[in-house]
Amino acid sequence: MYQASAPRFANMLRNLAALIDKAEAHCAAKKIEPAALAAFRLYPDMFPFTRQVQIACDTAKGAVARLAGVDVPKHEDTEETFAELKARIAKTVDFIQSIKPGQIDGSEERNIHLKLGPREVDYKGMQYLLGHAIPNFYFHVTTAYDILRHNGVELAKRDYLANP
Amino acid sequence: MYQASAPRFANMLRNLAALIDKAEAHCAAKKIEPAALAAFRLYPDMFPFTRQVQIACDTAKGAVARLAGVDVPKHEDTEETFAELKARIAKTVDFIQSIKPGQIDGSEERNIHLKLGPREVDYKGMQYLLGHAIPNFYFHVTTAYDILRHNGVELAKRDYLANP
Repeated sequence: MYQASAPRFANMLRNLAALIDKAEAHCAAKKIEPAALAAFRLYPDMFPFTRQVQIACDTAKGAVARLAGVDVPKHEDTEETFAELKARIAKTVDFIQSIKPGQIDGSEERNIHLKLGPREVDYKGMQYLLGHAIPNFYFHVTTAYDILRHNGVELAKRDYLANP
Repeated sequence: MYQASAPRFANMLRNLAALIDKAEAHCAAKKIEPAALAAFRLYPDMFPFTRQVQIACDTAKGAVARLAGVDVPKHEDTEETFAELKARIAKTVDFIQSIKPGQIDGSEERNIHLKLGPREVDYKGMQYLLGHAIPNFYFHVTTAYDILRHNGVELAKRDYLANP
């Protein structure tokens, strides 16, 4: 359970921070207003880039905290700039790395109670991790990547997968 | 290893087939040429919708086959229509379901040798599944979803996650 969660989330969040570095460099090179890219949405009722990054962070920290049975740290969603988003990622990675393998291993059957907007859902630990947290996490990281690629930032799959 | 792979891939591929059903209904309702949506790319040098679906299928079947130590079934990339893509998904799910848990469980340390274009990479089973196959699989399913959403198909996160 630990191997499938904390180190994978931390690794991919570092890759996401590196994507943001490339987005910043792209804006500088092309004289694009960084706020325009950070606020970009693939469709008007989809979330902007900033929110994709925030939700990726929240999904990772929430999964690690719930599986370990500790309080989910609160991070206010105030980020607007690329630098602020990288700071959000950094504090999320710090929290993930504060959790020891022994706190998460053995959580396969732990009861997880989740509020998803108006719905309340009960999971077992493994079902929550594999069927909810992991696909949701990669959804938001990938959509962040897709927003940057759609806007011409030069990224390749290698930047997303990096070094497993 | 089985729980983290085969049933998750099969479940998400069924969700992907349901997204394609909604894309078909959208094309019919809006009198859109289905081929235009199937060939859509988020950027000129990104893969079109059809190829995103094919790679999602290939990633899932390749992971399940390699972890089980059986030959990866060959599926030619000939699909152009939504119906053909759903048939591709169905035969991928059939293959995944033909593998028994005992064939995959215990494959954490299995040597996996992969050709990624010009590169050759060696993984251990768990590293391959968690660090390569799973993020790559969700990348292509999410990008398929993002292509449809970007084109106005009415989907929600619920359609992607469905029932874990």
